[in-house]
Amino acid sequence: MTGKLINNNTAFENSITKLFKIDLPIVQAGMIWASGWKLASAVSNAGGLGLIGAGSMYPEILEEHLIKCKAATSKPFGVNLPLLYPDIDKHIALIIKHQVPIVFTSAGNPKTWTSILKQAGITVVHVVSSSKFALKSQDAGVDALVAEGFEAGGHNGREETTTMCLIPNVKEAIEIPLIAAGGIGSGRSMLAAMVLGADAVQIGSRYICTPEASSHLAFKEAIIHTQEGDTELSLKQLTPVRLIKNEFYQQVKQAEEACADKESLKNILGKGRAKLGMFEGNLVDGELEVGQVGAMIKDIIPAGELTQQIWQEFVNLGYKLFP
Amino acid sequence: MTGKLINNNTAFENSITKLFKIDLPIVQAGMIWASGWKLASAVSNAGGLGLIGAGSMYPEILEEHLIKCKAATSKPFGVNLPLLYPDIDKHIALIIKHQVPIVFTSAGNPKTWTSILKQAGITVVHVVSSSKFALKSQDAGVDALVAEGFEAGGHNGREETTTMCLIPNVKEAIEIPLIAAGGIGSGRSMLAAMVLGADAVQIGSRYICTPEASSHLAFKEAIIHTQEGDTELSLKQLTPVRLIKNEFYQQVKQAEEACADKESLKNILGKGRAKLGMFEGNLVDGELEVGQVGAMIKDIIPAGELTQQIWQEFVNLGYKLFP
Repeated sequence: MTGKLINNNTAFENSITKLFKIDLPIVQAGMIWASGWKLASAVSNAGGLGLIGAGSMYPEILEEHLIKCKAATSKPFGVNLPLLYPDIDKHIALIIKHQVPIVFTSAGNPKTWTSILKQAGITVVHVVSSSKFALKSQDAGVDALVAEGFEAGGHNGREETTTMCLIPNVKEAIEIPLIAAGGIGSGRSMLAAMVLGADAVQIGSRYICTPEASSHLAFKEAIIHTQEGDTELSLKQLTPVRLIKNEFYQQVKQAEEACADKESLKNILGKGRAKLGMFEGNLVDGELEVGQVGAMIKDIIPAGELTQQIWQEFVNLGYKLFP
Repeated sequence: MTGKLINNNTAFENSITKLFKIDLPIVQAGMIWASGWKLASAVSNAGGLGLIGAGSMYPEILEEHLIKCKAATSKPFGVNLPLLYPDIDKHIALIIKHQVPIVFTSAGNPKTWTSILKQAGITVVHVVSSSKFALKSQDAGVDALVAEGFEAGGHNGREETTTMCLIPNVKEAIEIPLIAAGGIGSGRSMLAAMVLGADAVQIGSRYICTPEASSHLAFKEAIIHTQEGDTELSLKQLTPVRLIKNEFYQQVKQAEEACADKESLKNILGKGRAKLGMFEGNLVDGELEVGQVGAMIKDIIPAGELTQQIWQEFVNLGYKLFP
């Protein structure tokens, strides 16, 4: 709950907006099969921080998106980089080559790459789901953290700590700026997250429902039709991931109830399920990664308009809290 | 986020404080083996609403607590009544006989008893974990609702919706006043819950760590030592319940991993596990029902002092939001 409204409430000043050199403490998550240059540049142009999701991109595709994003915005943007990506060194080289100012790393140990990125002048943020890893990441030298609660879509932590509990815990544990993720899709939930101790928010699922997201339209519409209780943290034996409860999810669930081992589950999962569901729009057999906040999403609107809508709601509800 | 501070910030006026005729929008949860007359009267005397947890009481014990609670406070208090309690009709008769002003019902269908309680002039609140059941409860004629998120201790819903997502959903679905529960143990999280749309909060785990709670001291100390990730929603095949991961929990988990059926799990659970753990202080073999917020609890302090501490933090952080 630190920071102040500036420029007639059109911008915010705190540790995160200064670190990223942006106007609004709103980060658009770098989601696979969703967050390309169109989405990232639209959010950055609207005053937030747009992220390109490198996790679903071959190096040459990532380079194309970096070039197009730089052409589409003069504002800062970033790249989300899952550290377990097989060609990670190629991704890192491209990020340095194209002077991307900010990198969000996830799914891996921040020790390996943080110092290399920072030597190249890049601001590094790591995504965690526990206070323990928040502390480890701080020790590894990252500039800020995203703490992501159990309600978030996609891959998630094993301890299942929710945003309501995780944010105050992490805030107490660390000194560096903190970005809250999980369950946030409106100015109202953004304000709640800031009250809990976050310096900014990262919003994922809500940004999928924009024309700029590269996700398949059928997937976007599936999110709009999602009701409360329609997602679940699945595949806990492998890597926990929050999915819409479609036929593929049911197949996994039935196997788990029949006591399937890891190998069987890996066979069921196979390859390319995420692309199949979210990019190719196969709602039956694909993995559909969405957060619990999906139940609150009711329309597809341009990413810039969405960013401003969230910001206005935040200001209208919370302006008294921020001098 | 409706309501206003009154009486020099020592009280709050909104739909919930008017409904219950109390000063502060803080309800102490009626927890089994914890919430007797001592705890309930201490919280009510401090300006909140104390609840007696009838779920672990024989009718004659409940009557003793009702008589003692009325002697210990002139303020309103309530009873939490799990509707599946075998001797429910005796409990209801005692509540009516002793003119208890407020009843919170949980774990069952509110249709059966709401009209009978209301005919006796009693204010009825029902506890839910989804918007669907919130709507059904409103239709059944209850006066207010508690919506309890996945992070809460003890018995919990199957949809696993967290407080961050549940409160805005339920608020949008219903017209009657809403109390948020799950993950709340401080003035900060109370403010976040009110920002999300709650008119008051219900606090459980935090109130166990008071001298007035009838829980065993060993259990209270176990909560203080709880760290992030030390609880899990367990026994999902029977009735989901959030527990500290002690030896009993591990035994359940191993059985589940070995694909135990419901019958085997019922055998492992047996009878009296909750009493054994929380009232008799057997931390190894007992059920230890605590919310994720346990990781933030660091001391045992008197319930009245705790209520005022939470209230003061809420006022200090949020006074600008409430005229």
